[in-house]
Amino acid sequence: MPLRSKDLLTIEQLSVDEINLILDTADSMKEISSRDIKKVPTLRGKTVINLFYEPSTRTRTSFEIAGKRLSADVVNISTSSSSVSKGETLKDTGKNLQAMSPDLVVIRHSAAGAPKILADALPASIINAGDGAHQHPTQALLDAFTIREKKGTFEGLTVSIIGDISHSRVARSNVACLTRLGARVKVYGPFTMIPYFVEELGAAVAPSMEDAVADTDVIMMLRIQMERQSAFLFPSLREYSTFFGLNLERLKRAKKDVLIMHPGPVNRGVEIAPEVADGPYALILEQVANGVAVRMALLYLLIGK
Amino acid sequence: MPLRSKDLLTIEQLSVDEINLILDTADSMKEISSRDIKKVPTLRGKTVINLFYEPSTRTRTSFEIAGKRLSADVVNISTSSSSVSKGETLKDTGKNLQAMSPDLVVIRHSAAGAPKILADALPASIINAGDGAHQHPTQALLDAFTIREKKGTFEGLTVSIIGDISHSRVARSNVACLTRLGARVKVYGPFTMIPYFVEELGAAVAPSMEDAVADTDVIMMLRIQMERQSAFLFPSLREYSTFFGLNLERLKRAKKDVLIMHPGPVNRGVEIAPEVADGPYALILEQVANGVAVRMALLYLLIGK
Amino acid sequence: MPLRSKDLLTIEQLSVDEINLILDTADSMKEISSRDIKKVPTLRGKTVINLFYEPSTRTRTSFEIAGKRLSADVVNISTSSSSVSKGETLKDTGKNLQAMSPDLVVIRHSAAGAPKILADALPASIINAGDGAHQHPTQALLDAFTIREKKGTFEGLTVSIIGDISHSRVARSNVACLTRLGARVKVYGPFTMIPYFVEELGAAVAPSMEDAVADTDVIMMLRIQMERQSAFLFPSLREYSTFFGLNLERLKRAKKDVLIMHPGPVNRGVEIAPEVADGPYALILEQVANGVAVRMALLYLLIGK
Repeated sequence: MPLRSKDLLTIEQLSVDEINLILDTADSMKEISSRDIKKVPTLRGKTVINLFYEPSTRTRTSFEIAGKRLSADVVNISTSSSSVSKGETLKDTGKNLQAMSPDLVVIRHSAAGAPKILADALPASIINAGDGAHQHPTQALLDAFTIREKKGTFEGLTVSIIGDISHSRVARSNVACLTRLGARVKVYGPFTMIPYFVEELGAAVAPSMEDAVADTDVIMMLRIQMERQSAFLFPSLREYSTFFGLNLERLKRAKKDVLIMHPGPVNRGVEIAPEVADGPYALILEQVANGVAVRMALLYLLIGK
Repeated sequence: MPLRSKDLLTIEQLSVDEINLILDTADSMKEISSRDIKKVPTLRGKTVINLFYEPSTRTRTSFEIAGKRLSADVVNISTSSSSVSKGETLKDTGKNLQAMSPDLVVIRHSAAGAPKILADALPASIINAGDGAHQHPTQALLDAFTIREKKGTFEGLTVSIIGDISHSRVARSNVACLTRLGARVKVYGPFTMIPYFVEELGAAVAPSMEDAVADTDVIMMLRIQMERQSAFLFPSLREYSTFFGLNLERLKRAKKDVLIMHPGPVNRGVEIAPEVADGPYALILEQVANGVAVRMALLYLLIGK
Repeated sequence: MPLRSKDLLTIEQLSVDEINLILDTADSMKEISSRDIKKVPTLRGKTVINLFYEPSTRTRTSFEIAGKRLSADVVNISTSSSSVSKGETLKDTGKNLQAMSPDLVVIRHSAAGAPKILADALPASIINAGDGAHQHPTQALLDAFTIREKKGTFEGLTVSIIGDISHSRVARSNVACLTRLGARVKVYGPFTMIPYFVEELGAAVAPSMEDAVADTDVIMMLRIQMERQSAFLFPSLREYSTFFGLNLERLKRAKKDVLIMHPGPVNRGVEIAPEVADGPYALILEQVANGVAVRMALLYLLIGK
């Protein structure tokens, strides 16, 4: 069973079967990165373009390594050196890239919907690597992969997502993915950072930090994006850390086998205490490792025939 | 018959036979990009350096993809991260690169003549990917390739180039290439943007926009480079668009099978109306596609033995 | 005999046998770059990350070409596009990269000790490509390789290093490497740029420019780093050039077969006159060429099994 769409734009577009297919495929891809020779010829002669309008070491590198381990030709384009500065529309940029016959374009953009514009205009496959506060589907898939690896199933699990829910594409994609897979999702954060429509998305709002931490199987801490505008939505980093940060004290009330996740990069001492980030239940680095496997799976499923 | 020079610096250096050899080679290269596995081992073990002192998504990506589809190792160097900021001369930069045994260096530079400096100093092959307002020979070759694909021949054709002729390396290279191949070339644009020596180059100056559009087989619209200084050479973008832009109204007087070309990136609504840029006779995206083929041909002819 | 450490952080960590092993390996690597097909499959399926927190065309390109000629997958990360701007610690950046299973990370950083932090935190091999004013071991190794190629041995040789000794990681690594190999090292430069502990490192301070030039087998001129703070340590570039620059006049007193070296990029007319930089005994470009060979050797010895 292949994926129905040529693109991965949102989690909502995926059926449960498709999500499971992606996770199953990632399972076998993960083994490749542990080999002595970490390379298979699967995508030889395929061209993958990383089109990044926002900087991101982690995600761009993850896709680049995923592509290269599958033997694709990977071409990086970043904003600073792109035609954007010459006033070209995104659609024109996309069509021009298409003329060079790429098989797949990975796009990160600050505007929600940018990947959809490319997907509609281009025959090439498009992967949304994060668009504004909208979606970040590969992050949600790697998070689901990580949870499945540890818990085996999503049935009966409760996942708490804590932080700036309103501006988080990670939260949005994760709520969609986890509820679809059968988990119960709770969100918590500053009142100013909980969107009013969050329950329509299928998540409950936790009544307190205590409840969000204590009564849950997985805690996903979101990054406070200090470089963005959200700094005005709470009084200070210290206050944020006091009321919404995850530290060892708070973690005492959690289940013994709770999993701690974070999409990175981590602000140590702000949303998560160093002792927690480096503690035994933290899966932050496994998430990164699984990111390569999930992206290899997606590249393979979308353009590997 | 091989090319006589190790470098491609200008169109003027090429004989008609050499131009035809390049276009014929591009013909067979073009097919590679339409394959399922878009890669041949022709340049395996060859090193190609993209040395870009001016930003350019399109051209850099085109050369990078061309090199990778021929299995060359491609290394990108852009100004911002280069030794230029450390005050090294271009010749020294070139000699240092040469010491790493590249087979070919693609250079784009804001100064006319920069590629010649490299070509004289280095045993490696040099391709001029645009030097100031001087030359952009691979653009002219891909334009010629595109015209030949549609018209079959250059004999008896008239090509109109419209816009800022004075500051355009695209115009300069195209006049040289097309006249050499037997076409008649007319130029048109604001009086302040027509160089007084244009007729020495072999082109006629059209008396009016009407004449430039009506009596021609190919219309090449040039990009108004809003990010450069030429903004002071005409009163406003609106006025430019009114008098020198190509729109559907003006196109009514053109031949039924006129070809519309533009080197990109397009300023929609300035030098060309969106309906024209996306219309049936516009070849803008085919130009981009042919760019990869022509650059593959040049890489092959210059360093593929 | 393999190298004892998984990393190359300093020259001091290397035994004389290890240095000789690296130079011998570089000998056979050098031949590869002179072939028609400059590529061997040695590191196929290995992932090398170039993590550059300071710009450097030369060194980054040298490592990238070295990796690609050995068939490794090379991924470049530069500061401007990295998570650094998002406030992540170096250790966290390193651990996140490690999660993507690189085999080797090349790091250049403005802070002395940064490569050590990575080396302690990561199972991957780390190569120090320059850390602050601390060490630049691959430069010292390529310099030693270049001297050995010309002189055959280090026994009985005197090497003079002239310039800003205090702030030079090149000087520091070269003093360590050359004394270890049996050469005698003298340093000379402005009084403000000679560190008081230089004799503890094993180098003597030359009494005058005349002595530094006349009585020596190899002259290594250091680059005045005009883009750094050291500009205040001498009155003017003209004065620096007058008293500490190497010109033809001064060179008359040198041995007939003296070798002239410089790590580049060269400030022509400041620390070295153009006639000297381009003269018959200058090895500046051979140093660059040997840099690729030495880096190929290190990649091979550290991760080639």
